[in-house]
Amino acid sequence: MNVPPSTVARLPRYMRALEDLAERGEQQTSSGELAELVGVQAAQLRRDLSYLGSHGVRGVGYDVQNLLSQVMGALGLTHDRAVVIVGLGNLGHALANYVQAYVVDGGPGFRVAALVDADPAVIGTEVAGLVVEDAAHLEDVVAREGATIAVLATPRDVAQEVCDRLVAAGVRGILSFAPRALQVPEGVDVRSVDLASELQILAFHDRRRP
Amino acid sequence: MNVPPSTVARLPRYMRALEDLAERGEQQTSSGELAELVGVQAAQLRRDLSYLGSHGVRGVGYDVQNLLSQVMGALGLTHDRAVVIVGLGNLGHALANYVQAYVVDGGPGFRVAALVDADPAVIGTEVAGLVVEDAAHLEDVVAREGATIAVLATPRDVAQEVCDRLVAAGVRGILSFAPRALQVPEGVDVRSVDLASELQILAFHDRRRP
Repeated sequence: MNVPPSTVARLPRYMRALEDLAERGEQQTSSGELAELVGVQAAQLRRDLSYLGSHGVRGVGYDVQNLLSQVMGALGLTHDRAVVIVGLGNLGHALANYVQAYVVDGGPGFRVAALVDADPAVIGTEVAGLVVEDAAHLEDVVAREGATIAVLATPRDVAQEVCDRLVAAGVRGILSFAPRALQVPEGVDVRSVDLASELQILAFHDRRRP
Repeated sequence: MNVPPSTVARLPRYMRALEDLAERGEQQTSSGELAELVGVQAAQLRRDLSYLGSHGVRGVGYDVQNLLSQVMGALGLTHDRAVVIVGLGNLGHALANYVQAYVVDGGPGFRVAALVDADPAVIGTEVAGLVVEDAAHLEDVVAREGATIAVLATPRDVAQEVCDRLVAAGVRGILSFAPRALQVPEGVDVRSVDLASELQILAFHDRRRP
């Protein structure tokens, strides 16, 4: 299965819309209905789903539960993945609670396995039901949990160093909130969320209005 | 100036790299150096900057301060824009502190003008130096501050309603953390940060590894 990155990026939205339909007790859906819920063109949706081998039945559409299983299977959400969160400042703290509440309770997929910080005032405190561990033992924590995914919410100036240590310890996917570009070897994915950049891009569009 | 969206999305990264160079006292830079700092190809960077009317001088490169001013001007960061944050749960709380600390202290561009929540237990409390106001008065708050940009960190089920009210009150750019697609009229920009989706996309790539 060779799924284009742009399709992969839309799969979580399809999954969420299908979960909504399932919650409302809907058993069938059409490409038109699903596309409208997600906010894409129906032709785009049919093309995306065809990469997963899902083709709707003419006049009947898609079976909601089957399609949901297929999308979750494609995303690899068939078992819980251990996630380590590094950096428990304001943002990391909120992210830990958010991931526990929204992602974990939302079904299989992720388990916040450990929290790590370098600040002696933070180490040993409890956040989101977990005790924050010492960043000096980062490698041991990653190995112990078998974590392949990490959330990086450290200050900017240590982000690259922490990233290098995570990768050396076996992490293969990093969701970074550090406002800087991270260098990683091939085979490691970084998804960056840069809040300042997002606001700056909105400012650009706002500026161009009359 | 008709700048492609993909170029706009890279401008904040160029800005950050130029700020780093300026902080280190560098007066000149080359497209090669800047491209490496940002993690793009030099040809890409030269093309992007040419949209702003910036062409490096052969053998000399770019003047750091001039180019920084040009990029900031293009982004519309020449004066502070009022930002309203709606939803002061864990995530909204962290975002308020984060935007105050990282974005505002980073120079001109944004000013957290007001915080709004619907929960009586949160209204009246102080977050990031501001008193949280009642969501019942959302329209008045937006008008009072002349806010054109809002950060939406409400629960999912009220996100569309809050979005509609923000747009009706004059907001033209929304940075949304609500895990759902928002419908907005033409001329309004939504940038969505969906943390569950980001983790799911990492899981997809992780799944495909041996």
